[in-house]
Amino acid sequence: MTTTILSAVGTGSDAVRAALREAVSRLDDSLRTVVAYHFGWCDQHGHAVAGNGGKSIRSRLALLTAQATGGDAADAIPGAVAVELVHNFSLVHDDLMDRDTTRRHRPTVWALWGDPVAVLAGDAMLSLAHEVLLDPAVPHAVPASRIVGAATRELIRGQIADVAFERRSEVSLAECVRMASGKTAALLSASAAVGAVLTGAPARTVTAMERYGHHVGLAFQLVDDLLGIWGEPEVTGKPVWSDLRSRKKSLPVVWTLEAGGTTGHELAQWLSCPETPDEDGLRYAAELVDRGGGRRWARNEARRRVALAEQALAAVPMPAQCHRELTDLAKFIVERSA
Amino acid sequence: MTTTILSAVGTGSDAVRAALREAVSRLDDSLRTVVAYHFGWCDQHGHAVAGNGGKSIRSRLALLTAQATGGDAADAIPGAVAVELVHNFSLVHDDLMDRDTTRRHRPTVWALWGDPVAVLAGDAMLSLAHEVLLDPAVPHAVPASRIVGAATRELIRGQIADVAFERRSEVSLAECVRMASGKTAALLSASAAVGAVLTGAPARTVTAMERYGHHVGLAFQLVDDLLGIWGEPEVTGKPVWSDLRSRKKSLPVVWTLEAGGTTGHELAQWLSCPETPDEDGLRYAAELVDRGGGRRWARNEARRRVALAEQALAAVPMPAQCHRELTDLAKFIVERSA
Repeated sequence: MTTTILSAVGTGSDAVRAALREAVSRLDDSLRTVVAYHFGWCDQHGHAVAGNGGKSIRSRLALLTAQATGGDAADAIPGAVAVELVHNFSLVHDDLMDRDTTRRHRPTVWALWGDPVAVLAGDAMLSLAHEVLLDPAVPHAVPASRIVGAATRELIRGQIADVAFERRSEVSLAECVRMASGKTAALLSASAAVGAVLTGAPARTVTAMERYGHHVGLAFQLVDDLLGIWGEPEVTGKPVWSDLRSRKKSLPVVWTLEAGGTTGHELAQWLSCPETPDEDGLRYAAELVDRGGGRRWARNEARRRVALAEQALAAVPMPAQCHRELTDLAKFIVERSA
Repeated sequence: MTTTILSAVGTGSDAVRAALREAVSRLDDSLRTVVAYHFGWCDQHGHAVAGNGGKSIRSRLALLTAQATGGDAADAIPGAVAVELVHNFSLVHDDLMDRDTTRRHRPTVWALWGDPVAVLAGDAMLSLAHEVLLDPAVPHAVPASRIVGAATRELIRGQIADVAFERRSEVSLAECVRMASGKTAALLSASAAVGAVLTGAPARTVTAMERYGHHVGLAFQLVDDLLGIWGEPEVTGKPVWSDLRSRKKSLPVVWTLEAGGTTGHELAQWLSCPETPDEDGLRYAAELVDRGGGRRWARNEARRRVALAEQALAAVPMPAQCHRELTDLAKFIVERSA
């Protein structure tokens, strides 16, 4: 399935990568290396390395929706580059804020170059995203830039909520979903919408794509949270039970807490314990989320979101091939292992 | 003189403040308080406080150049708001990177709310700047947004250089000027240009305003560096000899080092000493910069830049009153004490 997606937008992906590299090349020498390193194009000394540098789901979404609305994938390239830049700006700042030392099996930007460089590298990527979209050669630049800007604001709102949740002992499932909706779904929704906007698609189509991206985004976060507990360390690059180690109030955890009962109560007690959990403790907590139903709920909810995404697509007449690519992408998100 | 400036763009300033508050009100509850606090509109608990919250030189520049090019100051308001947002985004991130605990006699954002909130508050302000400019009601939004975006990139380039300089033992005066040109002059230049762009002024006028803003910006930095050593603590809100305490490679310091001789050599030795300097040491270093000619050079260079700014203005025919306001603003920058 991944192969189908890659084949259909393959050329487009190469073009996005080239445009992304061109945009990054506009940065000052020192930041250029930092950003290229973060994208996985080079090592910390600036020497080129092989590697695809991530899933690029957001840029693929932009290209696919451009094609789905009858336009050319090439029209969506500035949008695809912009959403990748915004996504990666948020990763660099996130790693700094969370003090995460590795990403994709490599040291993070702040861990290698320090806080100031991580702050500025993120700032530069955010600024570059708008610069790419506001190129005079890009038609529909203003609505596209506004969509990306609004998503960035939502993204920041979600991150602020995330930071606040860490300090609070209780968080409701509804709050958690709203947070994920900002932190993850907003940019995936904008990625789907920006492809349509850049081909000049009508408002109704843009709204349908936005809705598709929103549900895909929530499914993405649900799967992320499942992988954060039960992901394979060799595949995810994170330690086993990673999110439990940091006592993250992820969606399956909060669902289990809200479901209550003996299991919910035991989980709440485990989470409130001030000591650093050992491996046995982590295994026990993961079992609680499983036994309490949080794991099953998250899996079903992710599937339900994919179905809602497919429903949103039904409102837009499009070539069968495009339709399949978009539903395949949604399914890939639910079935991925990293 | 300050009174003249305030009177001429007085109504405009109120309108900018109102538009800035409206923009900030779009932020999520928690960030809104943080940003409003940073602007000096409220205390850390969100209670309104009196105070003007800074010099607002950038927004004044935008309003003045809009009027100077024959337009209405009101046309420049989105630009004025955007440049203030970009300036303040950079201050919040700067304070975090430099670990400065006070600004304008109050604790800084990171000192009160921690690193993650400071990172996100800055990000939100940067994103908001583009959002304000890309409002559908703003004519010339795209070129205006591009000018602000390009200045942001320059600003970040300057900050990266600033961070790098701290780790280097030798920095040339030319490098130092290039750094200041990015870190300070780029946004003042963009502020002057954006006012002209938003009134639809011809390219020649925009370029003249850009040049005016660039020289004003370098004068501003030179005076900032002078105040960083010889400013009155009660007025600047910083300790006496503040920049020498942090061994900052500011323009007068670097000039003195490059001038060489016994004094330059003594200053280089003082700077390379690993111990924390005491008050006597700081007084001695300040005397070296003075005796070595760095203080006089910076003062003269600031005046020369103001003259160059005035020369740039000569290329644009404008009402006498506007011309006076713009030259007064440049002079105010050189004569200010904080």
